[in-house]
Amino acid sequence: MPAFQTVRGMRDLISEEAQAFTYIIAKSRETAQLYGYPEVITPVVEPLELLSAKSGEEIRQRMFVFKDLGDRQVALRPEFTASIARLATTTLKNEPKPLRLFSVGSVYRYDEPQRGRYREFWQSNFELMGSAKPEADAEVVLLTNSLMRSLGLQGCTFKIGHIGVIRGILSQDGVDERTQNAILQRMDKKEYDQALALVGSERCRAMLEGLLKIKSKDWRDTVEQTKSYVASSEKAKVAAENLSEVLKLVAESESFSITVEPAFARGLEYYTGMIFEVYISELEIALGGGGRYDKLIELFGGDPTPAIGCAHGIDRIALALQTQKTKISSKKAKRIVVIPITGSLKSEALKITQQLRVAGIVAEFEVMGRKMAKALEDADRRRVDYAVIVGERELKEGAVVLKDLVNRQQSTIALKNLVEKIKN
Amino acid sequence: MPAFQTVRGMRDLISEEAQAFTYIIAKSRETAQLYGYPEVITPVVEPLELLSAKSGEEIRQRMFVFKDLGDRQVALRPEFTASIARLATTTLKNEPKPLRLFSVGSVYRYDEPQRGRYREFWQSNFELMGSAKPEADAEVVLLTNSLMRSLGLQGCTFKIGHIGVIRGILSQDGVDERTQNAILQRMDKKEYDQALALVGSERCRAMLEGLLKIKSKDWRDTVEQTKSYVASSEKAKVAAENLSEVLKLVAESESFSITVEPAFARGLEYYTGMIFEVYISELEIALGGGGRYDKLIELFGGDPTPAIGCAHGIDRIALALQTQKTKISSKKAKRIVVIPITGSLKSEALKITQQLRVAGIVAEFEVMGRKMAKALEDADRRRVDYAVIVGERELKEGAVVLKDLVNRQQSTIALKNLVEKIKN
Repeated sequence: MPAFQTVRGMRDLISEEAQAFTYIIAKSRETAQLYGYPEVITPVVEPLELLSAKSGEEIRQRMFVFKDLGDRQVALRPEFTASIARLATTTLKNEPKPLRLFSVGSVYRYDEPQRGRYREFWQSNFELMGSAKPEADAEVVLLTNSLMRSLGLQGCTFKIGHIGVIRGILSQDGVDERTQNAILQRMDKKEYDQALALVGSERCRAMLEGLLKIKSKDWRDTVEQTKSYVASSEKAKVAAENLSEVLKLVAESESFSITVEPAFARGLEYYTGMIFEVYISELEIALGGGGRYDKLIELFGGDPTPAIGCAHGIDRIALALQTQKTKISSKKAKRIVVIPITGSLKSEALKITQQLRVAGIVAEFEVMGRKMAKALEDADRRRVDYAVIVGERELKEGAVVLKDLVNRQQSTIALKNLVEKIKN
Repeated sequence: MPAFQTVRGMRDLISEEAQAFTYIIAKSRETAQLYGYPEVITPVVEPLELLSAKSGEEIRQRMFVFKDLGDRQVALRPEFTASIARLATTTLKNEPKPLRLFSVGSVYRYDEPQRGRYREFWQSNFELMGSAKPEADAEVVLLTNSLMRSLGLQGCTFKIGHIGVIRGILSQDGVDERTQNAILQRMDKKEYDQALALVGSERCRAMLEGLLKIKSKDWRDTVEQTKSYVASSEKAKVAAENLSEVLKLVAESESFSITVEPAFARGLEYYTGMIFEVYISELEIALGGGGRYDKLIELFGGDPTPAIGCAHGIDRIALALQTQKTKISSKKAKRIVVIPITGSLKSEALKITQQLRVAGIVAEFEVMGRKMAKALEDADRRRVDYAVIVGERELKEGAVVLKDLVNRQQSTIALKNLVEKIKN
């Protein structure tokens, strides 16, 4: 029966998997706090016009688009940046710069489902608006590294490039922006032959081909090679120098594993500068990435505002944590079940349960009305730590029986000492 | 320009409002932990068939329905219960009972937007499956009260009824389930005349009319009156007795403000037993509510499984907190900005910033490249607590200048003492 499945490409997350998600979200929020990014919450449903403004043909074709009952063309957000740019050009228009904003939630793309790729997936998103300086670029790379480290992921590598280098080469030979976008789309998908076929000028094609070949084990060499390779193209040269500055700041402030790929492109059209992705060696998919987009806010009707941002894939990070068998550190609270011996003691037992909860103790109440032996058997199976047994005789003396289900011991405890006893 | 607005009925949440949301979500999660409800995450987009199975005509007509690119009829969830019932009858089919599950997220209804009512809104949701006992009903009422109390809301009142009483009266006179649902829909909207007009038998109509009039200041009286009023209708009598039992457990285990309304109905068709809503006196809209739904899991293809659940409206609770001017307790961390005196010290300054963050200190980096005076002026305006000024002279001696922006003092601090100095 189709009604009892999730929609293709979407999934239910339970137990450890759901825990991993809330853990990654909590760590993202912590990182946002440490770096001074206040949280904003924007709608999942947005005007189609907003979402398709500058996200790229590729994503436009893969959006969940529909009309609402008021005949408005809307879509489920495929990413956060358009919504945040909307905020920056409306409600937060007059906020002093830099403007730092954090968001987290689900986003939607109609992709072919595969390992680590779903049609509903989760992102934590950071945007830093107002600065064109390389230290702003460095900041989003650093915060991505901080997040990965705080999650306990090992061996993260950053793949870094600069859209300005490629666009510089193309615009030098007069390739229009639309064609540039089409070329970058293909380069993002590593369809290099198709990308090159779109370049009209032979000189330009050769230039791009050469760029694709620049690669060195040491990223510093790669950057230097790129700088001299594009020296004849003014815009590309400025871009390569900017990349070099960003990398210097990043590498000098923290130890990093970096690969520079001067012909690296990403799927979103709005990028104008440094772009990056983060990987672990065990997985081929990026755990997160981002880049500079200096024209988007202006396109949205705001004052010209340089900006940079990044997003982290929570589903993929969860997969990475699982792959690396990373322990999700969560203080496991002791679990208690409260069981009344007879039905007539239910109210008293519930009252005791409430007192435990008020004291911050995780307490379940025996809601099945089972006999003591059955209830205890169930508690054992679910690895509950203690049973509080509420009986008439003990209750008359202001006490209950506390049964330690791990150590198989039990004792009568005065109610007034119960919280303390369980906590220690 | 329409692209730069949110979709009608949806909104951006920023600063204090966004903070209130994350605060309420965190408190809901804490309550779930205390009561032993593990979290699950289900998709926002669900098969239409699943969502419309038993949610009620009213909600069916107000769903965001569309076809995905694979021509599947899907909709945005208008509530959580259908998704959780799906989980309970598939992935979690063989879990021992009771099965307790918590969820939190956005839900969607095409309602006329008004104060406290949006087309995208947020709920925290609790489901307890497997128990038909009144202590299970009591539990969801108690946990709702715990959540409201932990949020600091004052003067919460619970409006409580029992769908079984109304359905008992109607089925006694042979009113079919479809008509019963239509009658309950109208009663939920307080369209009592239209509801009564749907009742065929005059005897039954009179009976329902009488039920509507039962009201006493003391809820215990109301329950007693209801019990004797419906004594002639076997099913309604059993329902009234069940309501009485639930209320006894609730009231004896905690102090509560309760109003019993025997003819109270809620918009969802799947309810079969006790139903409730929680209010504060300052707002006319419910902050949350729930009820028993003993037939839903079976309808979804599972074994017959009694169940009860509740949902809390995060947007409305945020409004309530604002109305009661409740302080959102959040330890305000000290904020630091790190400013290099010259551009050549950026890497060093970034490195120091990273060290502060690793130590758990909220640190922003001056990414605008502004002159010292400008940067400090901006820090002042944003109420930053300290500026760490990185200068060549101090750095040579392994030190920085720490400027206390609140007390207008500054001193030179060795880098190795910086974290400690800021923390104390």
